[in-house]
Amino acid sequence: MRFQEKLDRAISQNKSMVCVGLDPDPKLMPDMGILEFNRAIIEATMHVACAYKLNFAFYEVLGAEGMAILEETLKCIPPHIPTIGDAKRGDIGNTSRMYAKAIFETMGFDATTVNPYLGFDSVDPFLKYEDNGVFILCRTSNPGAHDFQDPLFGVVAQKAKEWNYNGNVGLVMGATYPNELKDVRSNCPGMVLLIPGLGPQGGDPKLAVRNGLDINGSGAIFAFSRQILYASNGVDFAQEAQKSAETLRQQIESLI
Amino acid sequence: MRFQEKLDRAISQNKSMVCVGLDPDPKLMPDMGILEFNRAIIEATMHVACAYKLNFAFYEVLGAEGMAILEETLKCIPPHIPTIGDAKRGDIGNTSRMYAKAIFETMGFDATTVNPYLGFDSVDPFLKYEDNGVFILCRTSNPGAHDFQDPLFGVVAQKAKEWNYNGNVGLVMGATYPNELKDVRSNCPGMVLLIPGLGPQGGDPKLAVRNGLDINGSGAIFAFSRQILYASNGVDFAQEAQKSAETLRQQIESLI
Repeated sequence: MRFQEKLDRAISQNKSMVCVGLDPDPKLMPDMGILEFNRAIIEATMHVACAYKLNFAFYEVLGAEGMAILEETLKCIPPHIPTIGDAKRGDIGNTSRMYAKAIFETMGFDATTVNPYLGFDSVDPFLKYEDNGVFILCRTSNPGAHDFQDPLFGVVAQKAKEWNYNGNVGLVMGATYPNELKDVRSNCPGMVLLIPGLGPQGGDPKLAVRNGLDINGSGAIFAFSRQILYASNGVDFAQEAQKSAETLRQQIESLI
Repeated sequence: MRFQEKLDRAISQNKSMVCVGLDPDPKLMPDMGILEFNRAIIEATMHVACAYKLNFAFYEVLGAEGMAILEETLKCIPPHIPTIGDAKRGDIGNTSRMYAKAIFETMGFDATTVNPYLGFDSVDPFLKYEDNGVFILCRTSNPGAHDFQDPLFGVVAQKAKEWNYNGNVGLVMGATYPNELKDVRSNCPGMVLLIPGLGPQGGDPKLAVRNGLDINGSGAIFAFSRQILYASNGVDFAQEAQKSAETLRQQIESLI
């Protein structure tokens, strides 16, 4: 099944645009194994997540063992919920082919994030996997986005449209830049936007929903990690994660 | 010891600006284990390499086992030769901190490559490790570099100078763009340039050496991978790798 279809079904089944970020940070989570923590979070949120996003940094920091935990975590995710490998990779062609193979074949993610700085031949090896989703970083949610993404993000969005020969391109658009989000939304109808930056990063939910959704009220998913994972660091962490995810789902629903 | 000092010593000791890229591709190498292959290449080239560069893609494609091989490969490299983790990472601040910790602490690389697209707060967690080198992608060697790096690479070079508060910033400049290399070289005196793109990518060695070296005849290292690793795929692969590395060293020396 193609990524976008799988995503649409999960959104519809769970009535949710909440993408749960599995970014385990031992300093913030309860004193327990990371795989065990991830499994508990997945079980508590699988009825409310439209996708799970794993940021590789939180696994790589543990070395080879961390990558084994990442692989085991993927096995805990129900097969009908799509997985996004948040890797932000990008390299010259023959190397990007290795990264694409790693993420889509070796690890088996449904989608990934890629960094566009190296241009078409760095992104193309990912695009060739037509059943997999490719979210190109466009306007990121962090303060440093100003340094090089103005006005480049508009060019990236335009190129993303041109490169979308397999219909599997999406964009990462930070909720912290609602005007840029609005621009890109209107220039790229039909393209799925992955929107981080709500929660601790300070993006405005109302503007993010209003500016991020397509005219048919879909086409965007909202990534949350810390707000859900660390809603509590006590024994009730999974229960509180569930509550937090449900609250976020409802908040987005109410703004549509 | 700081990265640049370690690099200068290795350059001086081995009289070489050849950085050996350990990018093992099972399709191109002899039929043997990757760790065994890497070890043989290292033993054959340790008298001629000024640095070893490991591109993460070639290890990630093997999953957790690949990351274990990467860690084991690092242990085979003599401690006086600096190691570069060619990871091209870049993420929002709290996530880049995890990547920096992964590469400099968990894995223990002396230096790394970073992607600047997300701006200062994505690069800064790496810069904070003052003993480690940080090569910021500026003008990459691939055809797609045109898509977004013109004229952005000049801005990136300028920012790299501004961000160099710890004196540990270098730049990645593809040999395939000799004019851009010349520009950046003259704008960033004293900054180490990591120059890929000679060999199969078609960069001109004469122009790369002339335009890449600082006025004192140093300040650049030249990355080679396929030309050395796959000089032969027979039983003589290590011997041929050695010959190839020595030839490249001599070729560069003769052009200074």
